[in-house]
Amino acid sequence: MSKVASPLQIAASLTEFWSPRVVAELDESYVKVAKVQGSLAWHSHENEDELFLILKGHLRIEMEAGNVELDEGEMFVVPKGVRHNPVAEQECLIMLVERKATLHTGDVVTEKTRSLVEQLRPV
Amino acid sequence: MSKVASPLQIAASLTEFWSPRVVAELDESYVKVAKVQGSLAWHSHENEDELFLILKGHLRIEMEAGNVELDEGEMFVVPKGVRHNPVAEQECLIMLVERKATLHTGDVVTEKTRSLVEQLRPV
Repeated sequence: MSKVASPLQIAASLTEFWSPRVVAELDESYVKVAKVQGSLAWHSHENEDELFLILKGHLRIEMEAGNVELDEGEMFVVPKGVRHNPVAEQECLIMLVERKATLHTGDVVTEKTRSLVEQLRPV
Repeated sequence: MSKVASPLQIAASLTEFWSPRVVAELDESYVKVAKVQGSLAWHSHENEDELFLILKGHLRIEMEAGNVELDEGEMFVVPKGVRHNPVAEQECLIMLVERKATLHTGDVVTEKTRSLVEQLRPV
């Protein structure tokens, strides 16, 4: 799976919001991209940090201790165990790095929850 | 260490080539940025994959089985154990994700080798 990839181009090609795709494998982690708009769901990942990098647009990560606002090119790591809810007022393209074991919506399941099999589909 | 960071801006602010700085911590990995020009050194990381994402410019990763050419926005994972040598003909800004245990120039030490303490210095 080690090939040159363009996260921005792959994210832009996605047709469904909040449906991440794996674009690279890095030891015990996956690099994923997603096209997002609206709100995902409040959730947490008990044992895994989660990196968000904004490829295009603007993302707000709501957290109980305060929100962060991420512009294009900015990055934030949601620490393990921290409840969060990503929200994009307008279409936004993001890159994620997270453990292979990390569940899409963590400790909750909603109609937006995507399985790892779905995230590993070819783009 | 979980704060909003702009990898591109931080990389642009660096004054020394091939001297990565840690910009985020993600479980057992560090996210780093670097300003590079010229050639680093042929080396390998026996037990750790290494992710390269090009923030600005163009990077060639020389490998024994063939080179990859990475343009701005493109990403490549050098698999563990693969000997490689990153080369930038002109100034290039990159983001790296690698295990905390990963040594800068892997199994070799050159005058360009930087310790983890140096990589953890504030920018």
